Amino acid sequence: MVEFEKDGYNAHISQQFNDELEQIRTELLTMGGLVERQVHDSIESLLNGDAELAEQSLRVDKQTNDMELQIDEHCTRTIARRQPAASDLRMIMAITRAASDLERIGDEATRISRQAIELVNAGESPRGYQEVRHIGTLVRAMVRDVLTAFARSDIQLAYQVAKQDKAVDREYRTAMRSLATYMMEDPRSISSVLNVIWVLRALERIGDHSCNLAEHLVYLVSGTDVRHASLQEMKQTVRDETEEPIDDEN
Amino acid sequence: MVEFEKDGYNAHISQQFNDELEQIRTELLTMGGLVERQVHDSIESLLNGDAELAEQSLRVDKQTNDMELQIDEHCTRTIARRQPAASDLRMIMAITRAASDLERIGDEATRISRQAIELVNAGESPRGYQEVRHIGTLVRAMVRDVLTAFARSDIQLAYQVAKQDKAVDREYRTAMRSLATYMMEDPRSISSVLNVIWVLRALERIGDHSCNLAEHLVYLVSGTDVRHASLQEMKQTVRDETEEPIDDEN
Repeated sequence: MVEFEKDGYNAHISQQFNDELEQIRTELLTMGGLVERQVHDSIESLLNGDAELAEQSLRVDKQTNDMELQIDEHCTRTIARRQPAASDLRMIMAITRAASDLERIGDEATRISRQAIELVNAGESPRGYQEVRHIGTLVRAMVRDVLTAFARSDIQLAYQVAKQDKAVDREYRTAMRSLATYMMEDPRSISSVLNVIWVLRALERIGDHSCNLAEHLVYLVSGTDVRHASLQEMKQTVRDETEEPIDDEN
Repeated sequence: MVEFEKDGYNAHISQQFNDELEQIRTELLTMGGLVERQVHDSIESLLNGDAELAEQSLRVDKQTNDMELQIDEHCTRTIARRQPAASDLRMIMAITRAASDLERIGDEATRISRQAIELVNAGESPRGYQEVRHIGTLVRAMVRDVLTAFARSDIQLAYQVAKQDKAVDREYRTAMRSLATYMMEDPRSISSVLNVIWVLRALERIGDHSCNLAEHLVYLVSGTDVRHASLQEMKQTVRDETEEPIDDEN
């Protein structure tokens, strides 16, 4: 493992390395901003029947895809050139995983925009929009919060995002039951309600990926890999790392 | 960038590094074998109404989750210790991404097994099983082929898998239209047909992740990142790398 001495040439190298890390982190947050916009626009386009906004959100997807590749390439190049020690390497690995989850959130937003365009074209405004509005609001807050958590390296906030995902899953299941009932009550609505079902599914997945992002941040900060861990285990890791009580009220 | 000299101490280090890479690759293929089994068992449990097989497949999911963490940790440790040069680093990055897609395939298999258990408990054998059988067969072949491609570093086969994904997407859309029709014809079947819809969605996603795996292999072998590239661009990359014509007939 390379240990940098903080003098002369090595200090210079180390500074360059920190600058590179900082730049990658900035790229990730920029990508996050784009994806947050995509999610916002896709939901709004559906709720307001705004096909133009949906088209605009589809165009952003190309940009977020490109950013994922750029971030990954930047990460690989930095590892090859700087041969980082364990903790810096951890940061880079967490960022490359985070970029992958952000890209998948963008994909889900794209699915929502496509459904929005389809529903506008069919001239339909089916039941289930109330559920989309409600879960959409919860999920957008998760995306926003997890990006704030990354910007501030705030793993307490990351834990709150993971916790929120459980609430989204509950709301999602309730909404699915309502939608099945709508279809039974009015079989002619089946195909348009199915469109709404795909939207809710996409929102639920955005929640899952936000939760993954929260886990990547905890790994980045604490070094403990909490993927596939229970919420309780994640809470314990956050408490051990921050040495502060966890706000579990809201 | 570190260039190993093939003599004395450095050759020894280099051999150890190759052994480690080989071990990681073996772990990935072992994980692949588990996931292939999960996919097989989840589909069979649904088609045969075999709740016990479904439960067994759920237990395997824990193992594949653990293997993902183990592979990632092994990759990170190897990078930190061996400071690999560009091409070896590429292999490690591709493997860590592949482990992530394999884990997500396992997650989708878990979703199928859960639906199988639900359908057995409800004593239902709804319409749509024919579609599940058909698409399930296609998707299982994709998983098997992409793992064979990894085992042999065969990017021609990887290209075939990516191509096959387009066929699966077409079949999936056709099946969805049939299922919507079933529901309209018999509204009492709505909730059980919805279960089948979730299964088909999971199968379609397994196809997507198999396609991602094919892309990771092409990156590993050729150094060109073909994520978000068109099938045509992937074909070009494979042809340039192998300098052989592509079999585009089947």
